[in-house]
This record gives sequence, C-alpha cells and structure tokens, in this order.
Amino acid sequence: MANKKDLIREEILSIKPYVPGKPIEEVKRELGLEEVIKLASNENPLGASQSAIDVMKKAAEDVHIYPDGNVYRLRKKLSEKLGVAENELTFGNGSDEIVIMLGQAFMNPDDEIIMAETTFSEYRFSANIMGGNIVQVPLKDYTHDLDAMLEAVTEQTKMIFVCNPNNPTGTMVGQEEVEEFLEEVPDDVLVIFDEAYSEYATSDDYPETIDYLDDYDNLIILRTFSKIHGLAGLRIGYGIADEEIISYIDRVRQPFNIGALAQKAAIASLEDEEHVQQSLEYNQQGKKYLYQQFEELGLDYVPTQTNFILVDIEQDNNQVFQEMLERGVIIRSMDSYGYDTKIRVTIGLPDENKRFIKELKEVIRD
Amino acid sequence: MANKKDLIREEILSIKPYVPGKPIEEVKRELGLEEVIKLASNENPLGASQSAIDVMKKAAEDVHIYPDGNVYRLRKKLSEKLGVAENELTFGNGSDEIVIMLGQAFMNPDDEIIMAETTFSEYRFSANIMGGNIVQVPLKDYTHDLDAMLEAVTEQTKMIFVCNPNNPTGTMVGQEEVEEFLEEVPDDVLVIFDEAYSEYATSDDYPETIDYLDDYDNLIILRTFSKIHGLAGLRIGYGIADEEIISYIDRVRQPFNIGALAQKAAIASLEDEEHVQQSLEYNQQGKKYLYQQFEELGLDYVPTQTNFILVDIEQDNNQVFQEMLERGVIIRSMDSYGYDTKIRVTIGLPDENKRFIKELKEVIRD
Repeated sequence: MANKKDLIREEILSIKPYVPGKPIEEVKRELGLEEVIKLASNENPLGASQSAIDVMKKAAEDVHIYPDGNVYRLRKKLSEKLGVAENELTFGNGSDEIVIMLGQAFMNPDDEIIMAETTFSEYRFSANIMGGNIVQVPLKDYTHDLDAMLEAVTEQTKMIFVCNPNNPTGTMVGQEEVEEFLEEVPDDVLVIFDEAYSEYATSDDYPETIDYLDDYDNLIILRTFSKIHGLAGLRIGYGIADEEIISYIDRVRQPFNIGALAQKAAIASLEDEEHVQQSLEYNQQGKKYLYQQFEELGLDYVPTQTNFILVDIEQDNNQVFQEMLERGVIIRSMDSYGYDTKIRVTIGLPDENKRFIKELKEVIRD
Repeated sequence: MANKKDLIREEILSIKPYVPGKPIEEVKRELGLEEVIKLASNENPLGASQSAIDVMKKAAEDVHIYPDGNVYRLRKKLSEKLGVAENELTFGNGSDEIVIMLGQAFMNPDDEIIMAETTFSEYRFSANIMGGNIVQVPLKDYTHDLDAMLEAVTEQTKMIFVCNPNNPTGTMVGQEEVEEFLEEVPDDVLVIFDEAYSEYATSDDYPETIDYLDDYDNLIILRTFSKIHGLAGLRIGYGIADEEIISYIDRVRQPFNIGALAQKAAIASLEDEEHVQQSLEYNQQGKKYLYQQFEELGLDYVPTQTNFILVDIEQDNNQVFQEMLERGVIIRSMDSYGYDTKIRVTIGLPDENKRFIKELKEVIRD
C-alpha cells in the first residue's frame, strides 16, 4: 500500500494517540515494590458494595449468555429511583461512551462544542472523532465560568459540556447559577451536565438537575457507576434526558454495549445505600485530614466537592509524580492539564492518606 | 425546542432504531414457563471455561479499579499464541465495537463498503453511522460470492466485509478463493475477515488468514471471545492487522473500552484449550444429530461450519418462532434477513437439541 495514512479520515489526525500506562503489577515488578497504593484514578477505596460483588460472582456462571440489550431491569430500577421515565434513560460502556455517542448522534463537521479549558478530556475526543470544532473557555477560580461559556455560544454551537463537580479541579457550579444558565442557553443547544462525582458533592447548593428536565428538553445528565459505586472495572454509566433526545442517542448505541455482570452489579449497588453512605463518610473524613495536612505543609489546594483534591506542591509535578511512584504511591501529575506544579490525589482510606502524606513530605523536602 | 430532529446528524436517520427484546426471565414470567432454552444467539451451551469463571469471581473483589487501558497481559498472551506482534492487535467491547471503530477511523461520507446481502448487520450499522454507502452483494449458494464482491469494487470502495464462516448461513469461503481474492483486491481497499465463528470451522479448507498478514497490509481479522470461549456476557473481541492500520483504529478507541473481568477471563479462557476442544466436540455431535433429524423431517438445511444451522421449515417463520417460544424454546426467525420460511437454530447440548426437535416436530405438524 502506497500511503496508509491516505486511507484514514482526516479528522482523526487531530486525535492524540493514546499513550498506554503499565498495570500496577508490572510497575511493582519493575520497581521491586511490595505494596503500591493507587490514588490516581478517583476510584472508591472501599471497593464495590459486597452485595454487588456477590451478584457478580453468581452472574459469572452465566457469562456465556449475551447481556440484555435493553438493560431492562436496571432501567426499571433507575427509573423508579430517579423518578424519570424508562425511555428517558440510556446506557454506556462507562459514561465516556455516552459522550462518544453524543458526538455520533449530533455532531456535524464544523459544529462546535463549548467546554472548559481544564476539564475531562473525553468531550474533546468525542468532537475530534466527528470533526467538530472545540471552543475552550478558561475556568474562573478553578470553576466553570458559565457566563463566559454562554457568551461563547454561536450559531454553530451544538453542545455545551459542564462537568459538575469538575474533574480535575473538584469545584462545582451551584443551583442559581445553573438555573440562570439553562434559562439563557438557546434551546437548540444541548447542555450536558456530567455528574460522575455528584454523589460526593455535599454542598447544599449542588443542583438537582433532574428537577430541570421537565423544563429543558435540551438538558442531558450523565452519571456513572465507576466512582462512588465502585464498579469502574465493569464499565457502566447512564444518561438521562428527554425521551426524543434519548431515542436519537440510542440509534447509535450498539445492541450489547453493557455487559451482563455490569447490569446486575449496578442494580445491587443502587440497592446498597448504606455502602454509598459509608463511602461518602470515609471521603469526608479523608478530605478533612488531607486539608489539614496540606495546610500544615503550607500547600495551596482547591476545596473539593469530589473524592480527589487538586493541590499545588510548588515543584515540578512530573518529577514529584515519578518520585512518589518509586515510593509506591501513584498520583496524577496535572502537567497535561497545563498545571506545572499541581498534582491530583484521590482521597483514599485513612492508612492510604497517611502513607501518601508521609511520602509526599519526604519527596518535597528533598 | 422547535424540532429536535433538526439537531441530529442526517446520517443517523438511516439507522433503524433498535427494537429491544425482553430478557428470558420476563418471557418465562409472562408466558408462565418453567424452563426456557435459548438457541437464538449462538452462545456456547457448555458455558465459559471453569477457570475463566473462577478468575472472574476473584476479579470481582477488585472491580472498583479501572481496567488496564492497554490490555497489557491479554495482549501479550494473544501475541504469543497467534504469533503476531503486540502492536498488531486491538480490542473491542465485543468485536462489534471494532466494526464501529473501523467506520470511525476510515469511513468518509460517500465512501463505500461492500458486504454480503445476507450477513451480520453490524457492518451496515457502522457505515450508516458515518454516512458511508453500502453495496450489498447477494450470496451464491448461501455463500459469500467473492468474485461478485470483487467486481463491485469502485474508486469509492473503502472496506469489504467477509464474515467467514458467515452468520446467519454458516457457510465459509476457502483458502484458494481467499488467496485469489486478496491478490485481486486493490491494496487501498481494506478487507475485513470477521472470524467470530472460526474456532467452529472444521473444514481443512478453512483459511488461516493470519498467515496472509505479512503479504497484505490491507487485511484486518476480527475475532471474539463471545462464541466458543463463552464470554458473550462480558463483551470482548479483538482485531489483528498491520501495525499502522491498528494505530489508526486505536486513535478512536476509548481508553477503558474493555472491562477488567473481561481481560482476565479472556486470558484464562485462552489457556483452557481443553474446554475449547470439548465445546467443539459437543458441537460436532449436536450438528450430526440435528442434520439427521432435519433429514428425517425432510427439511432442507445449509451445512454449517459454525455452531448454528440455517434450516427451512417450509412455514411462516415468525409464526413458528412464536409457537416455539410459547413452548419454551427460543430460536431466531430469519424474516429480517429476507427469508420467509427459514429459522436459525444454535446447536445446543444433547438435551436441548432433543427438546428443540421434539417441539419443532409438534409445531410444524400442527
């Protein structure tokens, strides 16, 4: 073949190829480490609900059967729990996949998406795949600047993504601000609230966006089982929106995109409210401890509504990442988000938080 | 919003919305059935390998951790087993997802795909999502007509899909024919061999397409763990191709598209060659039994290289489907493939095959 590059869609040249990391076991082997703690991916350190684990073990026996393409039972369960109709729900292989499906359903070449400059990168990926243009609006005090996002709306705007609370800063936009925003956004612009971390938001001012669905057909809410529900390894998220909007997303949904174990574990997880509550309590305690430690160390951090904290370690973050890794603590350097001296750390269990602080002290003291 | 339909990409209007079926448990409840057997989706009736099941149960404990985005260990395992390089492999949430990724990576609007008129529908779906045109070539004796597919090639042709063995007819194209075909296809046309059922093909003439990879950069092979490996519920398939072609597919792959349990179970499944062998033997015996029964009943069937049989029951297939369902046997009517009197039945375990024949006799006798 003369030039294989000629075969591909030009649009995908704008996508940065994925740079794979190594699994923890490999890192341990290579660095000769005994115990590694991972505070890099905002997983629930308590793990999944025990009843979800039990359900998976049982479901493993029937794994040769295709999953239910319609996600019948989980759909029913969520519909009851959230007070939305069954056909106001769709499901993704992680909520990431719903972001991709939104592009496939709605994004024509040269349509625009508006997103924060510093937020979850999947929105950019989705637009890139479909040849859409990306308008990035800087955060204000580490927080989505909804006014500036509104001002950025043009005739070409198709979607606005608001990650609330925001990854990787942990900040949120509140009720009144969201209500005004929804009122002002033209009704032919889809507004996507990505609420992956919503269960961790403890502010009274955190908006109950589901309540706005009746008034705004252009509102789409994304949620996930990967965070507080502890099912990241199974890949399952969901979207909530107007029935007709959902029907268009479903046109591009693959018939069996959600695994059988994921569907069953998600139901069990929704039923185990105690586990969610306990996970939240651990997170609140860990947050308090880490705030205190950062303050003692004189490190600036961004107060968080999530299970992670963005903190300024006032040193080259890639180097700190590497040194922490060699000490068996995996955190995230925020280099790729344009921060040179900030890291993002997941709030872990008490022992993990202590170990993180211990190693961090030594690393930044060096 | 004035007209929500104005928001969507015109291309997706050509996609038939998915019509969901009900899960078996619901069917049982509604029809008051005790035991239902499902011979509709070509699942392995022996189930997954016991060691794969054990691995899943263990992995369920760590399901709160994100899966390895690079599929490191399974990639290594497959690379060794198949004798291909690690970067000649990609992975999908089922091989279906790779079909979608092929569209995302390579399909410009008005590019053409060539596919058989009667084959797996996912190829059509992939082209539809991207606004590609679909050229359908009729089967010849229920078999891919590679000469006619070659003649259909135009300047616009981007991909040719060959499902081998073919779903839903069970037929295959052989070595010599495939070699000639690959030699004749222009090298800027991607040729995709979907080998989901390859492990069931027992003909000496079934082509070892991996051997052709060195000579043909435009060859892409798709495989799955959903069929003989019995992992349909977990969703995992893989693609094999030239390293550069794979790198383009990987640009549109989501970072965590393969679940953690799926990756681990797939490795265990590859290692359990005895289970694969046993599954094949059961299939051969079941095939022989069903052939014999169909012959006794005077029903024409298409000899199969897979774990299912296309059989002409000489009656309205939707009606037969419904009556069989009410008797607790789920098969597939081939109505949507343009066959009015044919059904597709998965080869089950001996008892399931007997029950299917018993009920079928009564239904077609009525």
